[in-house]
Amino acid sequence: MKIGLDIAGGDYAPETTVEGAVLADMELSPDIKQVLIGDQEVIAGLLKKRKVAPEKFEIVHAPDVIAMGEAPTKAFAQKPNSSIAAGFKLLREGRIDAFASAGNTGAMLVGSMYTVRAISGVIRPCITSVLPKEDGGVGIILDVGINSDCKPDVLYQFGILGKIFIEQVYGVKNPKVALLNIGEEEEKGNLVAQAAFGLMKDSKDFSFIGNAEGRDLFNGKADVIVCDGFTGNVVLKEAEAFYCLIKKRKISDQYFDRFNYEAYGGTPILGINANVIIGHGISNGVAVKNMILLAREVVEVKLCEKIKQAFQ
Amino acid sequence: MKIGLDIAGGDYAPETTVEGAVLADMELSPDIKQVLIGDQEVIAGLLKKRKVAPEKFEIVHAPDVIAMGEAPTKAFAQKPNSSIAAGFKLLREGRIDAFASAGNTGAMLVGSMYTVRAISGVIRPCITSVLPKEDGGVGIILDVGINSDCKPDVLYQFGILGKIFIEQVYGVKNPKVALLNIGEEEEKGNLVAQAAFGLMKDSKDFSFIGNAEGRDLFNGKADVIVCDGFTGNVVLKEAEAFYCLIKKRKISDQYFDRFNYEAYGGTPILGINANVIIGHGISNGVAVKNMILLAREVVEVKLCEKIKQAFQ
Repeated sequence: MKIGLDIAGGDYAPETTVEGAVLADMELSPDIKQVLIGDQEVIAGLLKKRKVAPEKFEIVHAPDVIAMGEAPTKAFAQKPNSSIAAGFKLLREGRIDAFASAGNTGAMLVGSMYTVRAISGVIRPCITSVLPKEDGGVGIILDVGINSDCKPDVLYQFGILGKIFIEQVYGVKNPKVALLNIGEEEEKGNLVAQAAFGLMKDSKDFSFIGNAEGRDLFNGKADVIVCDGFTGNVVLKEAEAFYCLIKKRKISDQYFDRFNYEAYGGTPILGINANVIIGHGISNGVAVKNMILLAREVVEVKLCEKIKQAFQ
Repeated sequence: MKIGLDIAGGDYAPETTVEGAVLADMELSPDIKQVLIGDQEVIAGLLKKRKVAPEKFEIVHAPDVIAMGEAPTKAFAQKPNSSIAAGFKLLREGRIDAFASAGNTGAMLVGSMYTVRAISGVIRPCITSVLPKEDGGVGIILDVGINSDCKPDVLYQFGILGKIFIEQVYGVKNPKVALLNIGEEEEKGNLVAQAAFGLMKDSKDFSFIGNAEGRDLFNGKADVIVCDGFTGNVVLKEAEAFYCLIKKRKISDQYFDRFNYEAYGGTPILGINANVIIGHGISNGVAVKNMILLAREVVEVKLCEKIKQAFQ
């Protein structure tokens, strides 16, 4: 297996990405090779500084950088030698099995949609976030940011994507899928949620358990919570805000520690024809390491294939 | 001043509502009279149990109850002798200056819209929630649940309603108004948010500071955060979930203690022709007391009048 890593991606790259690669290397089995994509000299220098033999990795020289704030479509088209464009080229050519980056999310999406494309039948690919549950398990919420406006059939498909993801990657059997809403009853919510409930309630594609509310995000009511990317992104950032406040107030608590994004390493883009992992822009070395381990997991369980089968 | 209280309203009524009235009585000046609306005998019995002279209060006999789960429109029409219907009758006739209830929110809305009605020019009345800020102050978010789908001009008006409310009731001068969104830039967000930004950016009705994200809910970026009632309700219930988890985990922290809903007593319905306060269904005695004190505040600052003036 080969995992491509965007060395230039992230607020603190390339130091943190090289650090993450070195950390991941210690945990990956020898048959898994990391392909470090970025400026060859910079990578070699950072590996030398860490006294790591460069032979441990494959290095692909891609000296250009798509910065965090750049307009994604333009940047992706105009910078074929950027680490992100090079990564998608490798992915499309089958020279890597997964591509992971904590860089410009927009450019990662553009690369995904124009290079490897959405799986036939998937209306809108999406991204997820992990919800640490009170009982020690995890749930997921999706979409959390790439589809601000969602039609009911898109929300329905998120149910399928979320079910497959949590089953395969987190080992949750027959996950309970819920619709994020503002009441328990079928007729509650905005027009899209009402229509989505109508589609989901007789679903044979997943176990629909009805509506979940904001108060159910961290309890055991549902394993997969489906919403539009606008609401999901607000939910995700509110949880991050709480975690930051907990840290600021120097509260040490095992449960709340599980809100640390570092532990999850990011999210695959669900519903595209390849394994693409997006990490948090602020990723440190540990977060990058976990992003690489998530990439391995996603390749090993053949997440993409499973999703393709579901949409055949 | 006369404040009407729905004695039958709330999950733990009438015990908690009578308790709240007695607690509030100790803090209200003698020129403020509480009008207890509910079953006369029940009220008299509960006051006697607490050894409180019934003369302290005005009691209006309204023996029927609109239960928490009842269909609001039907219940309101069919139960003229319910505490909620009686409260609105008193309000419309000018026999009370405010009406407060922790009961069936839907029935309180129906009563508001059919009895006292929306202020001319206000497209959609709304409700708010307090956001405890890190720096010790408070912000507000609106709408938090009565308008699941909002057009851009409705969101714009929430900016006006929120500004007046926080200025008058919480004394925040020239409040910073933001639009809840999923990025800082103007073009971010769903279609409604994008259009609302366009309306708000040149506003002369309030100081618009741009978008606020989920991570900004508890920091000092904005005093008033505007969103549709679907997103706002999810935000509110997620914050409640966090507060519950903090309590469950026996974390004691001054800042997080400020998430206790009891302290705020509820929210006025903003944009109607009378002072109506809605409390949390799970209100205990302290929460009911604070709901009554909020009603006093809203009457004293002439919140309704100020909003009417703004929409003239």
